[in-house]
Amino acid sequence: MSKVSLITRLAVIGVGLIGGSLALALKRAKAVGEVVGCGRNAGDLEKGVKLGVIDRYTTDPVQAVRDADVVMLATPIGAMRSLLEKIRDHLAPEAAVTDAGSAKAGVIADARATLGARFAGFVPGHPIAGTEKSGVEAGFADLYVNHRVILCPQPETRMSALSKVQRMWELTGAQVEQMDAKRHDAILARTSHLPHLVAYALADVLAATRPQSEVLRFAAGGFRDLTRVASSPPVMWRDIALANRDALLVALDEYIAVLNAIRTAVAAQDAAALEAIFNRAKALRDSLPPGK
Amino acid sequence: MSKVSLITRLAVIGVGLIGGSLALALKRAKAVGEVVGCGRNAGDLEKGVKLGVIDRYTTDPVQAVRDADVVMLATPIGAMRSLLEKIRDHLAPEAAVTDAGSAKAGVIADARATLGARFAGFVPGHPIAGTEKSGVEAGFADLYVNHRVILCPQPETRMSALSKVQRMWELTGAQVEQMDAKRHDAILARTSHLPHLVAYALADVLAATRPQSEVLRFAAGGFRDLTRVASSPPVMWRDIALANRDALLVALDEYIAVLNAIRTAVAAQDAAALEAIFNRAKALRDSLPPGK
Repeated sequence: MSKVSLITRLAVIGVGLIGGSLALALKRAKAVGEVVGCGRNAGDLEKGVKLGVIDRYTTDPVQAVRDADVVMLATPIGAMRSLLEKIRDHLAPEAAVTDAGSAKAGVIADARATLGARFAGFVPGHPIAGTEKSGVEAGFADLYVNHRVILCPQPETRMSALSKVQRMWELTGAQVEQMDAKRHDAILARTSHLPHLVAYALADVLAATRPQSEVLRFAAGGFRDLTRVASSPPVMWRDIALANRDALLVALDEYIAVLNAIRTAVAAQDAAALEAIFNRAKALRDSLPPGK
Repeated sequence: MSKVSLITRLAVIGVGLIGGSLALALKRAKAVGEVVGCGRNAGDLEKGVKLGVIDRYTTDPVQAVRDADVVMLATPIGAMRSLLEKIRDHLAPEAAVTDAGSAKAGVIADARATLGARFAGFVPGHPIAGTEKSGVEAGFADLYVNHRVILCPQPETRMSALSKVQRMWELTGAQVEQMDAKRHDAILARTSHLPHLVAYALADVLAATRPQSEVLRFAAGGFRDLTRVASSPPVMWRDIALANRDALLVALDEYIAVLNAIRTAVAAQDAAALEAIFNRAKALRDSLPPGK
């Protein structure tokens, strides 16, 4: 007789890089009995079955969450509120519902407003992992190994749901920690959301430059590194930017202020001011722990 | 009897990543008889001799260029004018003098103003290669393989000097092409100089964030990639920013305008505007040829 899995039936709504990698990692860890995938595109879901990421699929969230003991919402943040409304009355009573949104305060407010009594089963989460690639074929079982997963439990959160979601992430190889949602959003605004906007903006400057072929020919290593994340899915990052609006505006304003200081120094040929900014920036960069 | 080398005596003023890698590549290609290194720090030059990058050294540029048939100026751009003044009267009559500055118009103006009749031997150059590392120990013979080297010959430039410098770079494995200096500066402002300022500015925002340890802990892959070049030498990039001031201000203004458009869209929760910018940026990034 086989050991009982942590999760009997996992519903993954949004079977892309994040949801698909979670399913693969849990299957490898023998932590899940069955994975039901759900999305809008049956062709992609079919691919997910063929790749062994999910066991079966439906395009109806109501069907997907039926009898699932864990439900993972891995859609763009903007889709979550209507999704929560749809599934609320169809969740199993003891189901743990969690998400992978990169900004937490908005998702938590949406869940609190829509889930009613089921909100006790909601465990807000954010796996800090990903690549600029997307789609079910981008998923891999090692994505979360040694990456951080932040959980932001609320006063109402049921301990059994929190424990189950925490254990689920640990079994993927991730390092799980708990954090206040507002603190999470302020930190991620600076370390992740702002950098994505910076990359999109830089790529957009080149998009507007003519002749473009010539500029592309000289886009060297630095430019490639700086714009890598501009390949990320636009809808996902549109939603993150809007969901973390307030913290992101603060970070954006700080960034634009530094850029304006650099612009002023270049215009005034102020060598000392430029060097001071560059020295400070280099010291910060050189202090980062060795990367993954 | 050994074949005659392309270069009998190469003087490298500034034995760091760029100058050191050139020397190593030319030695490997058996294209140089002797390499004389010159810099301000005798300890670093001693290291260069021990590493086999240079054959001997002096801290006096006048001594370094004596009887050299090729002189490479691989110092920060801001040091070049006074250097050119110092060496002018000590160059061999047929010496080719070239440089590796990332902005060309200013260096060319400096050389024209200082070198007099020797300006015919000056071949303005820019190897588009490098890492964020610096110093003689960072050099390696493969740095230029399949990288572009831009030469910006002037109406006065002697053909023999141009040919010799072109051949020198070809022997390192580089792809050499000629380009108008102003065009070079406008392209590099967007593809290289602006990205460096963007990275320094982003790292500087985190440098000002408290508590810093917490932010650093969450600086993920995207942030690491985006700020990698912020580890580059501040003095070198200070000089490049000032030397390419006019083209860079244009690029900076374009970039700040895009950022302000993003800020406005986030503040106004204008999902369509954000998505349009991100889509345009992603299309540009995805159109880059596969990277090195």
